[in-house]
Amino acid sequence: MGRRDLEPEQILRLEADAVVFLDQRRLPDDEVEVRCSSATEVAGAIRAMVVRGAPALGIAAAYGYALAAERGEDLEEAYAVLLASRPTAANIGWALERVRDEPTPQRARALHEEEVARCRRMAEHALELFGPGTRALTHCNAGGLATGGYGTALGALRRAWEADLVRHVWVDETRPLLQGSRLTAYELAALGVPHTVIADAAAGSLMAAGEVDCVVTGADRIAANGDTANKIGTYSLAVLAAHHRIPLYVVAPTSTIDMSVATGAEIPIEERDPAELTASFPARNPAFDVTPRSLIAAIVTEEGVSR
Amino acid sequence: MGRRDLEPEQILRLEADAVVFLDQRRLPDDEVEVRCSSATEVAGAIRAMVVRGAPALGIAAAYGYALAAERGEDLEEAYAVLLASRPTAANIGWALERVRDEPTPQRARALHEEEVARCRRMAEHALELFGPGTRALTHCNAGGLATGGYGTALGALRRAWEADLVRHVWVDETRPLLQGSRLTAYELAALGVPHTVIADAAAGSLMAAGEVDCVVTGADRIAANGDTANKIGTYSLAVLAAHHRIPLYVVAPTSTIDMSVATGAEIPIEERDPAELTASFPARNPAFDVTPRSLIAAIVTEEGVSR
Repeated sequence: MGRRDLEPEQILRLEADAVVFLDQRRLPDDEVEVRCSSATEVAGAIRAMVVRGAPALGIAAAYGYALAAERGEDLEEAYAVLLASRPTAANIGWALERVRDEPTPQRARALHEEEVARCRRMAEHALELFGPGTRALTHCNAGGLATGGYGTALGALRRAWEADLVRHVWVDETRPLLQGSRLTAYELAALGVPHTVIADAAAGSLMAAGEVDCVVTGADRIAANGDTANKIGTYSLAVLAAHHRIPLYVVAPTSTIDMSVATGAEIPIEERDPAELTASFPARNPAFDVTPRSLIAAIVTEEGVSR
Repeated sequence: MGRRDLEPEQILRLEADAVVFLDQRRLPDDEVEVRCSSATEVAGAIRAMVVRGAPALGIAAAYGYALAAERGEDLEEAYAVLLASRPTAANIGWALERVRDEPTPQRARALHEEEVARCRRMAEHALELFGPGTRALTHCNAGGLATGGYGTALGALRRAWEADLVRHVWVDETRPLLQGSRLTAYELAALGVPHTVIADAAAGSLMAAGEVDCVVTGADRIAANGDTANKIGTYSLAVLAAHHRIPLYVVAPTSTIDMSVATGAEIPIEERDPAELTASFPARNPAFDVTPRSLIAAIVTEEGVSR
C-alpha cells in the first residue's frame, strides 16, 4: 500500500446542504460516504458510529449545528439532539458551546482546522516521551479518523515514527467494534508505520515478554483531576502497564477536558447494545471505562506534557 | 431454554469405524457432528478446533489412537500425528501414554469416563472456595465441551451454583474464536445458570466496580512449579485480579500437570493463524499465555485444593 494521509475533508466535511462522513463502520473494506441533511441525521450517524472518536464527534456536532442554522431548523432542538447523541465524549458539548453564538459554516470549519492543528502540536510535545526503538501499544482508534485529521495518540506515534523514535505499534483489535484492527491498522498501513494487530487479551503476555515499551491512547473525557474515560479496555491496559512498570500516556486536546467533572466517578459511561457482542445470550456492553490519574504517567495536550 | 446437560457421548465418542465429535466451531447456531475415520483425520479435527479443551483433546487423542489400532494403521505414525496436533495441551501426551500399551476401545472409553469422574471430584473439592452470593468470572470454555463432560472450571461453577453459592457467572467472550460467548454461554444457558457475556477488555472495569468476587479458569498445561498455561488472556485476568485483591482459581485434572516441565517458561505456546484476528493487516495470534503460580490463589485437582 502506498503511503498516503487521510485529508481532514475526506474524514468529515460540511457542504452547502449536508454534513458528509467517511463511513467508518465499513472501513477498511469499503471507502464510502454518508450524507446527513439535518441535525437529526447527524446525531443518528454519531449514534450509529458512522463517525466516532471524541474530537471528531465534536467537529461533527459543530457541523451538524451549523447545517441546522443554514437550513433554518429549530436550533434549540438541534442543539439538544446533537448533545444527547453520545454521552461520554466531552468534545460534543465543548464544540456545540463554541459554535452556539455563531453557527456559521466558517466557524465550524475553523473549529475543525483548530482541532487538527492541536493534534500536530500534541505530537510535537509527545516527542519527549519516546526513546529510540520504542515499541508502543495502542487501543481503539485515536488516529485521523477519530479527530478529523492527524490523530491524538496515533498522531503522536506517527510523528515519533517519522523522528526514528517509535519503531513498532502493537494494535489492540478493540472489541466489540474492532476499531483497532479495522481503523488503526488501516491508518498505520496507509502511513507505512510498522504495526501488528493483537487480541485485546494478548496485551498482558506481550508486556510480560518485554515486547511493549509504552501504552499510548486517546481519551473521550478527562475529569478535572485527570481521571480519564476512554474505550473499554483502557483501564485494564493501565493496570497491566503499571504491573509491568510500563508508562501509559494519554494524548488528548484540551477540548476533551471537562472541568465541570471533578473525578472519573462522575463521567457518564455509555452502555451500548449487547448484540454488538452476541445476539444469542445475555451480554453487557459498556463502551468506555475510567482510568485513574494515578495509573497515567503523562497526559499530553496541545499545551504540553503533564506528568 | 430448558435445562439439559451435555452427555459425554454427545461431545465425543468412539464408534466402530470412526471418532465422532460435536463440531464446536459451529456452536451455538448448529449442533452437527464430524466423523473422523483415521488418526490423521482426528488430528486434523483437533487442529481445526472441531474439538478443543485440554482434557477433551486428551480423550480425542486416545480415541484416535484406539481407532488407528482397530483399523490396523501404522501405530507409530498415528501416535506421532496425534501428539503433534496441538502443542500446548499436556493432556494429549498424557492420554496417548495411557493407551499406548493397550490401544483398545474399552481402554479409551474408560479414560473418557475417568476424566469426567475427575471433573465431578474437582467440583466437590472446589465448593470450599465459594461463599454465598459469589459472582465469578470465567474465560474461554472449561465446561463439558472442553472435558468430554461436566467441565473443570465450569463444572466447579455449576456445582457451586447448585449449592446456592455461586449466583452469577461473567463470561469473557474470548477472542478470537469466541469460546466464551459461543460455548460457555451455551452450556450455562442449557444448565440454567445466570450469566452475562462481556468483552475480554471489560473485565478490569467490572473488577474495579466490585462486581467480580473470583476468577475461575481451566488450564492447558500446568508446570511442576504450578505455573499455568491457559487460553490467551488468562494472564491479563490474573494481573487484574491481583490488583483488585480478587482470587484466581485454576481447576484442572492431574492429567493437565506436566512434571517434566519445571516452570511456565518451558511450556510451548501455540501461535495460530493471524487470519483468525484479521485478514487485512499484520497480526499475531498466540493461543495461550502463562500465569505464574504466584498469581494463582488455588489450584483444584481431583485430589484436592492446593493453595
